[in-house]
Amino acid sequence: MQWDNKFATRTELMGRSTIREILKVTAQPDIISFAGGLPAPELFPVDRFRQMSDEVLSEQGSIALQYSPTEGMLELRELIAGRLSGNGLTISSDNVLIVSGSQQGLDLLGRILLDDKDSIIVENPTYLGMLMAWKTYYLNYFSTPTDVDGMQVNALPELLAQHPKLAYIVPNFQNPGGNTLSLERRYELVKLLAEYQVPLIEDNAYGELCYDGEPLPSLLQLDAQHMERNEVDGGHVIYLGTFSKILSPGMRVGWIVADTNVIDKLVQAKQSADLHTSTLNQYLTYAVAKDGFLDGHIEKIRDVYRERRDVMIAAMEEHFPEEVTFSRPIGGLFLLVTAPEGVNTTELLEEAIKQKVAFVPGADFHIGGSGANTFRLNFSNAKPEQIRTGIERLGTLLKTSKKA
Amino acid sequence: MQWDNKFATRTELMGRSTIREILKVTAQPDIISFAGGLPAPELFPVDRFRQMSDEVLSEQGSIALQYSPTEGMLELRELIAGRLSGNGLTISSDNVLIVSGSQQGLDLLGRILLDDKDSIIVENPTYLGMLMAWKTYYLNYFSTPTDVDGMQVNALPELLAQHPKLAYIVPNFQNPGGNTLSLERRYELVKLLAEYQVPLIEDNAYGELCYDGEPLPSLLQLDAQHMERNEVDGGHVIYLGTFSKILSPGMRVGWIVADTNVIDKLVQAKQSADLHTSTLNQYLTYAVAKDGFLDGHIEKIRDVYRERRDVMIAAMEEHFPEEVTFSRPIGGLFLLVTAPEGVNTTELLEEAIKQKVAFVPGADFHIGGSGANTFRLNFSNAKPEQIRTGIERLGTLLKTSKKA
Repeated sequence: MQWDNKFATRTELMGRSTIREILKVTAQPDIISFAGGLPAPELFPVDRFRQMSDEVLSEQGSIALQYSPTEGMLELRELIAGRLSGNGLTISSDNVLIVSGSQQGLDLLGRILLDDKDSIIVENPTYLGMLMAWKTYYLNYFSTPTDVDGMQVNALPELLAQHPKLAYIVPNFQNPGGNTLSLERRYELVKLLAEYQVPLIEDNAYGELCYDGEPLPSLLQLDAQHMERNEVDGGHVIYLGTFSKILSPGMRVGWIVADTNVIDKLVQAKQSADLHTSTLNQYLTYAVAKDGFLDGHIEKIRDVYRERRDVMIAAMEEHFPEEVTFSRPIGGLFLLVTAPEGVNTTELLEEAIKQKVAFVPGADFHIGGSGANTFRLNFSNAKPEQIRTGIERLGTLLKTSKKA
Repeated sequence: MQWDNKFATRTELMGRSTIREILKVTAQPDIISFAGGLPAPELFPVDRFRQMSDEVLSEQGSIALQYSPTEGMLELRELIAGRLSGNGLTISSDNVLIVSGSQQGLDLLGRILLDDKDSIIVENPTYLGMLMAWKTYYLNYFSTPTDVDGMQVNALPELLAQHPKLAYIVPNFQNPGGNTLSLERRYELVKLLAEYQVPLIEDNAYGELCYDGEPLPSLLQLDAQHMERNEVDGGHVIYLGTFSKILSPGMRVGWIVADTNVIDKLVQAKQSADLHTSTLNQYLTYAVAKDGFLDGHIEKIRDVYRERRDVMIAAMEEHFPEEVTFSRPIGGLFLLVTAPEGVNTTELLEEAIKQKVAFVPGADFHIGGSGANTFRLNFSNAKPEQIRTGIERLGTLLKTSKKA
């Protein structure tokens, strides 16, 4: 049969993810890859996983291998609710839905919130996984400029007045920019949400990976504070989180915190999408995280990634030409490099791969055609020595491309 | 914030799954539930899972806990391709996509094949999980009557001539009917597909659970045979399978076999939906299944479920009033009971739950408002003694409702 003419109309908007296609090329072991958002595999707590999978299967095997409720395992939802409570906000497990990674969180949120041709507010540049999740909705993006303090919220009133369906933000150590929304802007943002009654999705995939200073309060917490509520219900913020960066992305366990009306709709969407997230993985994630293990483990990750970030920045200062600028994130996994106007980083990548080093060109993260001279670097996956070597190679390339 | 008016238009079509809501009620341990499609938990090969999770985490821990390709683990795809090859068809791993349970398979197929208001051919009654997966597409159902030999294919030419987008069938031990498409009808069906060029989704979730005689060839195989092909590419059939009923539903690992053009579109859809199925669960499923373990395990399941089916049928013959008829499946997990016209099985369920026994009323499986006097019974989950007790209670209720 000829399949070409059998597909749904909206598949015209689909395409393979640039990043995942680059990742295939860079899977060769001799390539130094700054391309993915992969955690350092040597930090996975493999022994703890072994011990706990034995415990879970011994003690609860027939439950862990069976179907389970769409909402997710209660103890895991309670653990998440407890971790995210604070600054006057007490989160109930009823406000937590377990999802199969935060990519699924974005997909489900699209299903329950987005109609075709809706307008949404995003940072520019913004997270590619979100663009990918929602690409079949023919969306109109209201893009907001960003700087070192994150989304420029003073640009928002004009956009909010045009009734966008929602706003989407990565407030901490943004992907790809590496910037963090300042406390002042957080206050301003939650004030605007209350004024314009626009839902905000706070995607906090990296929030726990803070390397300098104390983490800032979440928008979920500040919105509740602003509304003088001590609970999630009634608030404007939908919060997305994941265990991918703090335990293991291969488990595909993430969560959404939201008003129970939103959770109810999400549960309906998730029943249709995959019934529920793997029971075993939920039990295993809970068992691995419990008894304070997770906090200790996050400390270890922070120490390793902090060093890698420092090594990368030092190497860039040494090897990159002066005209090339870059962000200096206080957490997370990524930083964004800006080459002089006219440098095409998609072409640069081809050269880089010949030199056995890879990154993600910035154009795909940007709305409206900008960013062709930018690229994203990941500093969590490669080891310090590889980072130094890779950055030196990129520096040499950038000096050449500059002259071209 | 008032969330009611923030949701997407198509959420008007959503609702919680009847079955999953019934399952919550029946989770109380003193209820004898014939409602779900739950495997017998005492058959889960917990020790094998323990042993293999230890092996996988010891030997491949840093791979199993990391991100992985959307297509799925190669060895697992090869294992599936090998198991489904036969009758002249050799399946390549390129034709296999791993999905997060066959519910996700249905969801992804909807995304790439269905436009709003499309018409599709289904059996009547049909699988509720499919109706649930596709309920937001405003579909028009061309329903085909079924009998003991499955879908009445002589009804198809008239429907196929109206250019439906696809046909969906559960050929083996259908859910909820329990019937199996005869070999003769299989040949007729693949002939019609070639004639009308309509894609067919063969949902074979239960095919391995055959209790009497030899399994019939798959429609995937017969379509290739009819087209004189020895490969999947070019064929009309999209095949859905799962490890849920033969290993563990809590793992959420299933698969789709299709033309590589279809797989390519599905990969794009899956990248957006959840990036990939849990790496650990794919490695673990492969490790558990390998070295012939799966075949031996399926034999055990068959023996246990065959007995339970026999016990249920014997008990129904003893305790159900004569006017109540039921299917006698040669495999699978379900049978369908038909009470006399006028008996409302949704009301009967309320009475049944008071008597601590549960089933799923048949109306939701039916297209066009029929089936209010039918209900589905599962015979895999409850033990023989419970089956006898539960059926006796249902028999008493049916005798009362008959008189009403």
